[in-house]
Amino acid sequence: MPVYADPVDGLAVPVGLLRTWTARLIEALGTPADIAADVATVLVASDARGVASHGTARLPNYVALIEAGVMDPAARPVMETRRPALTRFDARNGWGHHASRVAVDAAIDSAGTLGTATSLVRNSNHFGIAGWYALRAAERGMIGISLSNTSPLVAPTRARQPLIGTNPIAIAAPAGRFVSFCLDMATSTVPRGRIEVAARRGETLPIGWAIDGEGRPATTPESALAGALQPLGGSEASGGHKGYGLSLAVDVLTGVLAGAAFGPNIVGLFSTSGPSDLGHAFMVLDPAAIDPPGVFERRLEGYLEQLVAAPTAPDAPGRVLVPGEPEAEAARRSADHGVVIDAVHAAKLRELGDRLGVAFPA
Amino acid sequence: MPVYADPVDGLAVPVGLLRTWTARLIEALGTPADIAADVATVLVASDARGVASHGTARLPNYVALIEAGVMDPAARPVMETRRPALTRFDARNGWGHHASRVAVDAAIDSAGTLGTATSLVRNSNHFGIAGWYALRAAERGMIGISLSNTSPLVAPTRARQPLIGTNPIAIAAPAGRFVSFCLDMATSTVPRGRIEVAARRGETLPIGWAIDGEGRPATTPESALAGALQPLGGSEASGGHKGYGLSLAVDVLTGVLAGAAFGPNIVGLFSTSGPSDLGHAFMVLDPAAIDPPGVFERRLEGYLEQLVAAPTAPDAPGRVLVPGEPEAEAARRSADHGVVIDAVHAAKLRELGDRLGVAFPA
Repeated sequence: MPVYADPVDGLAVPVGLLRTWTARLIEALGTPADIAADVATVLVASDARGVASHGTARLPNYVALIEAGVMDPAARPVMETRRPALTRFDARNGWGHHASRVAVDAAIDSAGTLGTATSLVRNSNHFGIAGWYALRAAERGMIGISLSNTSPLVAPTRARQPLIGTNPIAIAAPAGRFVSFCLDMATSTVPRGRIEVAARRGETLPIGWAIDGEGRPATTPESALAGALQPLGGSEASGGHKGYGLSLAVDVLTGVLAGAAFGPNIVGLFSTSGPSDLGHAFMVLDPAAIDPPGVFERRLEGYLEQLVAAPTAPDAPGRVLVPGEPEAEAARRSADHGVVIDAVHAAKLRELGDRLGVAFPA
Repeated sequence: MPVYADPVDGLAVPVGLLRTWTARLIEALGTPADIAADVATVLVASDARGVASHGTARLPNYVALIEAGVMDPAARPVMETRRPALTRFDARNGWGHHASRVAVDAAIDSAGTLGTATSLVRNSNHFGIAGWYALRAAERGMIGISLSNTSPLVAPTRARQPLIGTNPIAIAAPAGRFVSFCLDMATSTVPRGRIEVAARRGETLPIGWAIDGEGRPATTPESALAGALQPLGGSEASGGHKGYGLSLAVDVLTGVLAGAAFGPNIVGLFSTSGPSDLGHAFMVLDPAAIDPPGVFERRLEGYLEQLVAAPTAPDAPGRVLVPGEPEAEAARRSADHGVVIDAVHAAKLRELGDRLGVAFPA
């Protein structure tokens, strides 16, 4: 995920304080305390990891969904069908973060016995950062894979309209002194938020990020926002059909397999026109089924040592990175100095807090 | 995978004839008949699907490995460790195609009972096209995921040297009138074979395909062949770190998890300097664990109908494609008219046949 630099005029809020306030705000919406705690944990982890686009800045969007009656703040996920290693949950249109935490924990438990297990979720909502659920498995010494479909923002290769999601893929594993390997990526070249940043900065766009409303390469953020994102790889000549294929594969494993909505049938991002009915999948593998505990992790650590020590290209801004390193570094910074939120973000939270009777503490 | 146009001066060989001859040739190398049949099936399926780079044209490379004593033509894979849903096989340095067929069949069997299952393989060799194993699951109504690590040909983002493989990802699922969805992709922008084709054609290279030996963008095939491929996405600005992360994730799930070689420690492609010790992973999910038989497949068919009917971009050479469609089309053509192989390819097979006493029939 793109880690944005902290805003220079930002407000530093201690992580614990932000989490407690977020949980109370969510409770004020009619959410039971245990569910609110899960949601707050995932949202604030996103902020702490420098992924402001998926954290507490989205609270107004969630509140709008609840107030419009298209998301149920109190719903508890129900286990529906199950074979020993494959379980489907119905999130009953509740918080995606909670249903996903329950689902990944079920997969972690089963993987500990069976070696691998997968949980699917249907009838869900936006679950925040995919990496959080993959890291949950990595923290228990396992490999976690977290997938979700999303609202249609990406044009399939050759198409002129957005028909598929930015469908993220996250994979995490324990990695010794590197703590964890955590790839967390949208299957588009860039997320829509990056185009919005370019619009605010008055930048032109490189080829491969987006197409305009006519299906031609978009060179300005404005034409891109009226068009569609391109899949990872950009045009067909530079491998964009692979990004399209990956996005579609994620939807096959989430929306189609779980029996949720998929592709062009999903409502717009945070649209109040109807329930999102998103699908998620969480796959967990236990390396302890293969080797004594710690052996896998030491192998991965040794591999990453080789990569970070590699000679760099002339234009490289630094050494080779381990996927997830920038986010982990941001999380350490946030733990020490607080989550730094910008003025617009802070004003939104203050306004929400005032309206819902849970005063923002900073 | 890139499907190349049939050569104009090519020789058409009936699929069954090519398969029988290939199996006999492999038997002549000291391979038991059942193992040889598996290898021939996968190699000829690659040819039939238009992926000549992974089919019988590679037979001279396999023969060289066997004659150098670095690959065992008679080895049978052994099931090593196992929990109900996660099994590891030691391929004992035998044919990767056979070990992989055995491994994916084990995962298919277990998924039928447990809902999902994964087989890992270590100590293996080049297994041909990843898609074949994923399609094996799709033919049984299941979702198959097939992964392998490969020789280091790709430079991680920021690095100047090839340290990771083109590590393919294949995902297949049954898809009604579309027969199957089958994404089968290297995690580099293009495979090395595409650079070799550009060299033969005297083409210059687009940005994002490769770097030269100094770590700068390679503009000629010659400088690229002395450098490294770039991961899907190309440079960091166009998302190349995602392709790097995907390649590394495949290695984590294959080489690192299975306890095989990984990354820069794998010998060169078809190098006779030592055993390859490749790792593979095969993950299978059974949609019948979630819904009555056929329901998943009808949902996927409906989704693909929406995509292929989408309005196209002005520069699109045709309608939106389903991943795997070009390969499936080539396979139908080959079934009707034979596999068309070029003169160099035919000469190689004739020479091998003469030397091993199994005359090439065409």
